[in-house]
Amino acid sequence: MLNERSLHSDECGFVGLSGSLQALAGALDGAFLDIALSFDAEVQEFLPLLPVDDLRKIDYFTSFPHVVTFPVSVENESADLHEFARANGAGCDGPLRLNRVGAVSAVLAPAACYAVYIALKGASLETPRRITVKGTCFRSEKSFEPLVRQPSFRMREIVHIGGRPDVEVFLEEASRRVTLLASALGLTAKLEKATDPFFDPERSPKYRHAKLFPTKTELVVEGVAIASFNDHRNFFGEAFGINSPAGPANTACFAFGIERWVHAIVATHGMNPAEWPLSRFAGLDQTSCAR
Amino acid sequence: MLNERSLHSDECGFVGLSGSLQALAGALDGAFLDIALSFDAEVQEFLPLLPVDDLRKIDYFTSFPHVVTFPVSVENESADLHEFARANGAGCDGPLRLNRVGAVSAVLAPAACYAVYIALKGASLETPRRITVKGTCFRSEKSFEPLVRQPSFRMREIVHIGGRPDVEVFLEEASRRVTLLASALGLTAKLEKATDPFFDPERSPKYRHAKLFPTKTELVVEGVAIASFNDHRNFFGEAFGINSPAGPANTACFAFGIERWVHAIVATHGMNPAEWPLSRFAGLDQTSCAR
Repeated sequence: MLNERSLHSDECGFVGLSGSLQALAGALDGAFLDIALSFDAEVQEFLPLLPVDDLRKIDYFTSFPHVVTFPVSVENESADLHEFARANGAGCDGPLRLNRVGAVSAVLAPAACYAVYIALKGASLETPRRITVKGTCFRSEKSFEPLVRQPSFRMREIVHIGGRPDVEVFLEEASRRVTLLASALGLTAKLEKATDPFFDPERSPKYRHAKLFPTKTELVVEGVAIASFNDHRNFFGEAFGINSPAGPANTACFAFGIERWVHAIVATHGMNPAEWPLSRFAGLDQTSCAR
Repeated sequence: MLNERSLHSDECGFVGLSGSLQALAGALDGAFLDIALSFDAEVQEFLPLLPVDDLRKIDYFTSFPHVVTFPVSVENESADLHEFARANGAGCDGPLRLNRVGAVSAVLAPAACYAVYIALKGASLETPRRITVKGTCFRSEKSFEPLVRQPSFRMREIVHIGGRPDVEVFLEEASRRVTLLASALGLTAKLEKATDPFFDPERSPKYRHAKLFPTKTELVVEGVAIASFNDHRNFFGEAFGINSPAGPANTACFAFGIERWVHAIVATHGMNPAEWPLSRFAGLDQTSCAR
């Protein structure tokens, strides 16, 4: 289905887009950003490392140890480096042979929006805030399928931080707008309730004690979630001390999986850009779409 | 110097930009992309994972073991996951406690351009090609300074793949254009010869045997390299079997460190966007600069 000149991939997780697929990804994120700006979201951007200490505050390592990916380096002492270099030279093959690794105090971001709550730690908000971020994310996956299930992928999110009533209005409008966009792009999509797969629900303190646990709805095209709508209630507000006038802030977000939208368009309409259903895609030309 | 409402950072490597600094980063990359397009470069984009097997072909683990960062996960067997979750729950502090980690067959990209050569493996090019990529990169660093020395940072590169004469023309024009841009932005910058710090030059086979080893020139502002110009000669062409009509391709690239340009502008002109020296920055307004 996919033109190999536009998709570059390797089962270890290497993924690249060029030509019309790169332009499609850019045009789709342009549409997502249009929605974000119509929500009056402020644009922020974060590098994809999150402090271990902050993820502990939300019990991340207890709830999702099977998802998390850490950046590690060889311990910076000469003997270890020599051993590592000897064991992994040009003549070797197979996975890397690691010896002692350095201390790990940051984690590769599993989603784009965590950085937003971390940056707001301790804030008191008089009025609700909306923020959009596009981030590179990392998750440990058991299988690899380019554009669909990648160990590294890109996500555009729009976050709302405020009180209970405005969070509900935000999520209702988000779901309406994203469903409309999918429909305008000719995608056959449906909303489905989802639960994130907890590693060990019975042992997760947050899972056991929270009566108002975060909920997630997904927009699904042929079995693949291309967007999600997440009501965190006061989970991040309490963990990070973010307050609204009514107490710990409520937060919510909606997220677009950028490569998954590319996949949905191509799976639905084929590889010919002239068949893609937005006027901005017609007569696609790389230079004009490069931004 | 930096307004804390626009820069979010933590010594473990967490870095985010909002407000005027985010808009500045976007406008700067817009200027870099303008240069790329004036070089007729094709736009490509890659997720930041590179296959271990491909980095072995360029002796990366022998030459730069001190720089490389790997994404690792806990081995996906229940006993290991339970042990990891127990050792890193909400009550713990300090760096993560890791037990057995899974096999590592990809590395976090240390530069944006490697992916371009990997995607061109085995290609025979009739005419030179130019490609631009903006990538998130990762390097193990001994210290942390936001915008200047980060374990994760963004880089825009413009790559040329061709023969010896056209590579030389490309690098000459690149250095002229980037120096002009720095000057137009009011930066006091100078070109300096650089050598990448090899881990153990005497033991590196490529270092010992190559008479025509890759060379690097940097554009430096107050001791910080904000751009580099790299002549790889036939290093990547030979390693990845990329051929030009005259034999293994010659390659070259020039690279912009996006956060370092943000730092140079702010260090030179201060935090007030009205003082930033391009008309596109004057009267900066987030919505209009969001793209």
